Amino acid sequence: MSKIILLNNRPVGTPQLSDFKFSEEEKPTIAAGEILLKTKFISVDPYLRGRMSDAKSYIEPFQLNQPIASGGVAEVVESNNEAFKKGDFVSTFLDWKEYQISKGKGLLKIEETKVSLSAYLGVLGMTGLTAYCGLMEIGAPKAGETIVVSGAAGAVGSIVGQIGKILGCRVIGIAGTDEKVALLKSKFGFDEGINYNTTTNMSKAIAAVCPDGVDVYFDNVGGAISDGVHANINRFGRIAVCGAISTYNATTVPMGPRVESFLVKNSVLMQGFIVGNYAAKFAEATQQLTQWLQEGKLSHSETIVEGFDNTPQAFIDLFEGKNKGKMVVKVY
Amino acid sequence: MSKIILLNNRPVGTPQLSDFKFSEEEKPTIAAGEILLKTKFISVDPYLRGRMSDAKSYIEPFQLNQPIASGGVAEVVESNNEAFKKGDFVSTFLDWKEYQISKGKGLLKIEETKVSLSAYLGVLGMTGLTAYCGLMEIGAPKAGETIVVSGAAGAVGSIVGQIGKILGCRVIGIAGTDEKVALLKSKFGFDEGINYNTTTNMSKAIAAVCPDGVDVYFDNVGGAISDGVHANINRFGRIAVCGAISTYNATTVPMGPRVESFLVKNSVLMQGFIVGNYAAKFAEATQQLTQWLQEGKLSHSETIVEGFDNTPQAFIDLFEGKNKGKMVVKVY
Repeated sequence: MSKIILLNNRPVGTPQLSDFKFSEEEKPTIAAGEILLKTKFISVDPYLRGRMSDAKSYIEPFQLNQPIASGGVAEVVESNNEAFKKGDFVSTFLDWKEYQISKGKGLLKIEETKVSLSAYLGVLGMTGLTAYCGLMEIGAPKAGETIVVSGAAGAVGSIVGQIGKILGCRVIGIAGTDEKVALLKSKFGFDEGINYNTTTNMSKAIAAVCPDGVDVYFDNVGGAISDGVHANINRFGRIAVCGAISTYNATTVPMGPRVESFLVKNSVLMQGFIVGNYAAKFAEATQQLTQWLQEGKLSHSETIVEGFDNTPQAFIDLFEGKNKGKMVVKVY
Repeated sequence: MSKIILLNNRPVGTPQLSDFKFSEEEKPTIAAGEILLKTKFISVDPYLRGRMSDAKSYIEPFQLNQPIASGGVAEVVESNNEAFKKGDFVSTFLDWKEYQISKGKGLLKIEETKVSLSAYLGVLGMTGLTAYCGLMEIGAPKAGETIVVSGAAGAVGSIVGQIGKILGCRVIGIAGTDEKVALLKSKFGFDEGINYNTTTNMSKAIAAVCPDGVDVYFDNVGGAISDGVHANINRFGRIAVCGAISTYNATTVPMGPRVESFLVKNSVLMQGFIVGNYAAKFAEATQQLTQWLQEGKLSHSETIVEGFDNTPQAFIDLFEGKNKGKMVVKVY
């Protein structure tokens, strides 16, 4: 048998374990041209919260009583397809199932070389590409500029900050615990870190560590943290809006200071994006990230939760910031 | 003697006549290389409200007990400068004075040809350049796309809409009276108009006239009107944030729905700007605007208030939408 995880309810506010349902199905049998994938790692990501709602978005919502799906790493355990052999590892989009069939399309063959297989869900996968493309294409930082990153200890934020340092920028990170803030400086090389949970006036806190103002803001969180950064944005500042995790579980429209005045006063750019917009840059980005990784210029951090059954809880924990870096579930 | 208008108080909320003070000075005497300018037209513009505050902005605040200044058209009435002769007309940045001296720098010589001199404060001046550069550089509309313009009957908005039609777009304008809405269609060729004062649900009203959603939003007003447009923005939509007149007189920080979610969901660009950012495009823009004007493709609308003494009231009236098109004071 093969365990699967279905969407039981559309979450209201913060997702609950009861929004997920475990089930089982027969371990599938492959036909000609097909391969059988055994899930090794499952990526849990904040954006999945959006797909659990039925609101219009850039990606189709999950269906009730159907499997959740996300990025994953799998092992080929049976193959009727010439392009894959038993024992190959692939990175692809997977249903939350222990076993599933693939016809071989959209699979990226990967190898466990200098990095663990799970890195292909993080620094060399969607989160690394999100960091690289959002920062380079929207933030377009120049050496000497100041970059602020929210959700800085997270999977995307920690890579954004390191790229900023590689490019010669001053980099400030915002995170939610003193431990994470310490990690920003010790592991990821940020110049300064701010713990938003112990900061009463974010605007003043940003001003204190950004004497020349903020040129680039890479925003993963939105909400009151961002208000404090916006108040310090420089003329011709660029805000890459990658996510707004602080508002994903809101049940009413989150309200905040209107942005138009500072956008006009300082000729500021705000650009929302998803990584898929920059597919044309993926090859270049992956090559650059791999090189930096091999040169030891890029550290990556993972929180690995063990066991397929813990996938829903790992996802829920994202919203309480329990992860440091990429949150991944190790299935086997 | 020469009358002048000084900033008496920094306005709190909506500007009052008492925020301005009239005074007189000796009609100045020119030295070698100087010319004496007699003010013919004064441009009153919403952005001047910002300069009356002492908040940090892209331009220095006006000083108390010093003259207000804005765009204007003047006649050269005396000249000790070879580049100018008595009877020349110039467009430049003028203090609110009947007479003033210039050394000839930053003056654009203009002629009363097919358009009135005041057009150089509007369609061929700062407002025309604002419309052209903001729409082309940020909105970047393609034929067949849908453009929404707020403040559509105003100086900038009416030109934006017409350029949109010239480019083959569907153009919707939002204005504050039925008379203005009628003008949008009859004079400026907009496809549809919406009176925000008689519309209870702006989001539904926009949806009704934009069956394919909104690709470009040229925003002059901000506030609740913009919330309704944002709700209909398409994937990869572009929002040129030109101004936020609805909030300029606010005495507390205006609050509204946070924008991050729709920016990310639809990969939307929001770019604040001032016309000066695009100085490199002014020659091209002026040439294009002049050509369209001469070809009869561009109508422009002015509200001309007569009399130097009425300048403060004309400025105040902007915030009640009493102008149709460019608001100009005719001094002589």
